Amino acid sequence: MSLPALDLIAFDADDTLWHNERNYAEGHRQFAQLLAHYHAPEWVRARLEETEARNLQHFGYGIKSFALSMIETALELTEGRISGADIRALLEIAKKMLAAEIELFPAVSQIIQQLSARCRLMIITKGDLLDQETKISRSGLADYFQHVEIVSQKTPESYGKILKKYSVEPRRFMMIGNALRSDILPVLALGGNAVYIPCELSWEHESAEQPGLEQPGFYHLQSIAELPQLLERIQHGVNKSCSQ
Amino acid sequence: MSLPALDLIAFDADDTLWHNERNYAEGHRQFAQLLAHYHAPEWVRARLEETEARNLQHFGYGIKSFALSMIETALELTEGRISGADIRALLEIAKKMLAAEIELFPAVSQIIQQLSARCRLMIITKGDLLDQETKISRSGLADYFQHVEIVSQKTPESYGKILKKYSVEPRRFMMIGNALRSDILPVLALGGNAVYIPCELSWEHESAEQPGLEQPGFYHLQSIAELPQLLERIQHGVNKSCSQ
Repeated sequence: MSLPALDLIAFDADDTLWHNERNYAEGHRQFAQLLAHYHAPEWVRARLEETEARNLQHFGYGIKSFALSMIETALELTEGRISGADIRALLEIAKKMLAAEIELFPAVSQIIQQLSARCRLMIITKGDLLDQETKISRSGLADYFQHVEIVSQKTPESYGKILKKYSVEPRRFMMIGNALRSDILPVLALGGNAVYIPCELSWEHESAEQPGLEQPGFYHLQSIAELPQLLERIQHGVNKSCSQ
Repeated sequence: MSLPALDLIAFDADDTLWHNERNYAEGHRQFAQLLAHYHAPEWVRARLEETEARNLQHFGYGIKSFALSMIETALELTEGRISGADIRALLEIAKKMLAAEIELFPAVSQIIQQLSARCRLMIITKGDLLDQETKISRSGLADYFQHVEIVSQKTPESYGKILKKYSVEPRRFMMIGNALRSDILPVLALGGNAVYIPCELSWEHESAEQPGLEQPGFYHLQSIAELPQLLERIQHGVNKSCSQ
């Protein structure tokens, strides 16, 4: 298959470039532990997930939303009997999550550095504005990305706006990420290219049916380390604006 | 004074286009009332402001941050004795703030509509991503703005990035807002034009010394209704890309 050259390669951040979901998993675990003398951990987890889903439209994504959902769930599950000390512990869980070390996935630093010399790179991530900016800054990767877009939703519309803003045609755009629903399907719907790199831990809310491998523009890799070969393979035989 | 034509006019949103600070003032009032049997309202207010300022670097701006700061302050001021029902009431205050009606300032709708026919308009606002997007959408003004940028800080650097992204020279850029520290000073520092329209209620954190009226590019209006005349005056006698 031959593809036109790429003008812009965009990466999702959380669980594509660095670990993130495991921080939420740990937050969930600590929450369940705190409420262990009221309810079984599975029940606590299920109720917290319900609250998170219900609050998503009001609060959006991110750790502050998670903190508010933990507090709300704790009040519900204890019928308001939760102690001040326990509420304070929930705030501490959230603050620790905000300060959690950014651990890049293997090969990320090297691959991003290499690619940035050959192509315009961008981060497109959703979540809390300040938290995402802080993580990008702390990741040590900020200098390799020419643009950063933090969005509240990843839909064909939100990708379309970004491509328009940067004057990039969908077929010359590639998105790389771990979430089918957010990183892959909306980009394919626009006629762009999307590389799915699953992460061991992925957020339940982000699951969706995987496109067939035969779908134009869809690629599936095991690791970001395989990305340079894929790009070479895609661009082989075409005029490569990205690799020259 | 003659100025080059303007390529881009950007507006701050909260307390420039619509009421916002009064919602926080009301949140503060309700918070003080809730804790009235522990402490005097002035003391409660001062402690909440301290917590907000301390948390700004972790949580950033917005109602979710305000909610977490209210809960933290309530725990401190009651030495953890606050009841579950009261914590729930704090969550309700925050949810009501998120759902508060958007009330535009007088003349805003008409002025923005008129200007949008003559010039490229943008919103540059800081705060919580989802909350700001939702407010812009609910304001009824979204269609008049070609671009929206939601940032975590308004500094010469963040304005500089935006101008670069949209290929606009600072001297052909005008920012309009109610906050000297966020809307006016950083834009003047870049060599841009800034129109200060003070709002009756402005957030303490945003106060700064007002530039002298003789400073190039600085304008001071009482109301957005005066903006068209100012633009006409500024552009009188120059080649106006914005007004043709």
